[in-house]
Amino acid sequence: MRVLYEGKAKVLYEIEGEPDKCLVHFKDTATAFDATKKAQIEGKGVINNTLSSLLFRLLEEKGIRTHFIRQVSDREMLVWRAKRYELEVVVRNITAGSLCKRLGLKEGQKLKRPLVELFYKRDDLHDPLVCKEHVLLLGLASRGEVNSMVAIAKRVNRVLKSFFKDRGLLLVDFKLEFGLLPDGTLAVIDEISPDTCRLWDIKTGEKLDKDRFRFDLGDLMEGYREVLRRLQGG
Amino acid sequence: MRVLYEGKAKVLYEIEGEPDKCLVHFKDTATAFDATKKAQIEGKGVINNTLSSLLFRLLEEKGIRTHFIRQVSDREMLVWRAKRYELEVVVRNITAGSLCKRLGLKEGQKLKRPLVELFYKRDDLHDPLVCKEHVLLLGLASRGEVNSMVAIAKRVNRVLKSFFKDRGLLLVDFKLEFGLLPDGTLAVIDEISPDTCRLWDIKTGEKLDKDRFRFDLGDLMEGYREVLRRLQGG
Repeated sequence: MRVLYEGKAKVLYEIEGEPDKCLVHFKDTATAFDATKKAQIEGKGVINNTLSSLLFRLLEEKGIRTHFIRQVSDREMLVWRAKRYELEVVVRNITAGSLCKRLGLKEGQKLKRPLVELFYKRDDLHDPLVCKEHVLLLGLASRGEVNSMVAIAKRVNRVLKSFFKDRGLLLVDFKLEFGLLPDGTLAVIDEISPDTCRLWDIKTGEKLDKDRFRFDLGDLMEGYREVLRRLQGG
Repeated sequence: MRVLYEGKAKVLYEIEGEPDKCLVHFKDTATAFDATKKAQIEGKGVINNTLSSLLFRLLEEKGIRTHFIRQVSDREMLVWRAKRYELEVVVRNITAGSLCKRLGLKEGQKLKRPLVELFYKRDDLHDPLVCKEHVLLLGLASRGEVNSMVAIAKRVNRVLKSFFKDRGLLLVDFKLEFGLLPDGTLAVIDEISPDTCRLWDIKTGEKLDKDRFRFDLGDLMEGYREVLRRLQGG
């Protein structure tokens, strides 16, 4: 199969005779801090494929369009081939990560309302924060498209927050990517996993996401397996 | 006189018996890159006081409220004592400076429409870019106040751009600060000078502003004097 795109954690393959679809392969690579920290973590790809499939199915059930078609194997997901926007859309419920560093805030403070932030997907520029006006200036999306992404991101947040809460997990923040499906629909693409969500145990506050890897807080896979156990058991 | 506030380029003094007013003293200090580059440049304070006074008068004539009352000496300006917002409001007509660095743009490109950017005034955080939602989250201003600042900044841009153009100068970008006057009016405060505006010669493109100091492009005072000459001669 021809590689369409290789990212840090996934490979996208073309499918012969199916120009509207593609195959996502989840790798075991973990990266952080603009890929200056990097490791192979056996089994991560399998868990992230399973969790992403489960969460994309959940969003579809709630009427939110995604690129997901079905999980086809341990590490592979069949998706609609989408035209990706060069944006990362981050939704935050609790202060953490780059928000704290950037604005001098203490981690763990509940936000009055969810904060949606946009980042220009440019590794060489370290994915800078952008406001709506920058998105228009750079031609990354139209005003209508940005507004739709922000609205969809807030809906996704409501669905995921409640779903995680019922399973003892606090959704601190998460990153979404968007694309246009072959039929022209704006849809959530990429993945939704502990690589892209901050998830804390509601009772203990234990971090079960990629921050374990970023800051050496404990075995990454132990956290990811705990998330999987709670989501599949729920 | 008691010092109310000492900044990098100015000192604010209290005036005995006049609690609603204060005196701005323009220093000769030039700083750049978070004050890692610093110099004393004889006469800069005098020019910036004169230019700021002239430009504040211009804005007032056009119906834009500022803190300016009158120039009282070479280095001193009498102003209304304002409650300052911890924000820098930047208006850009042409790509330059931090915008280019942040978003990977080439300097000197004309923007389709003026871009207004907000920065959180926090030296220790290197004045990070913020969007409206961050301003609300940090409690730096209300939504109504931010919208007014952006609208006033665009009006100031129209006035200054045309004024400078008539004098052979291209207004590339500039920074404004805002405050509430004693009567509760939202007004432009601080200064408007080649320290806070990028000004290029319309014909030659020569930089006549603080970039001369930042990037060692030539004698700072020569550029500032040329701006003064054109503004006073016009």
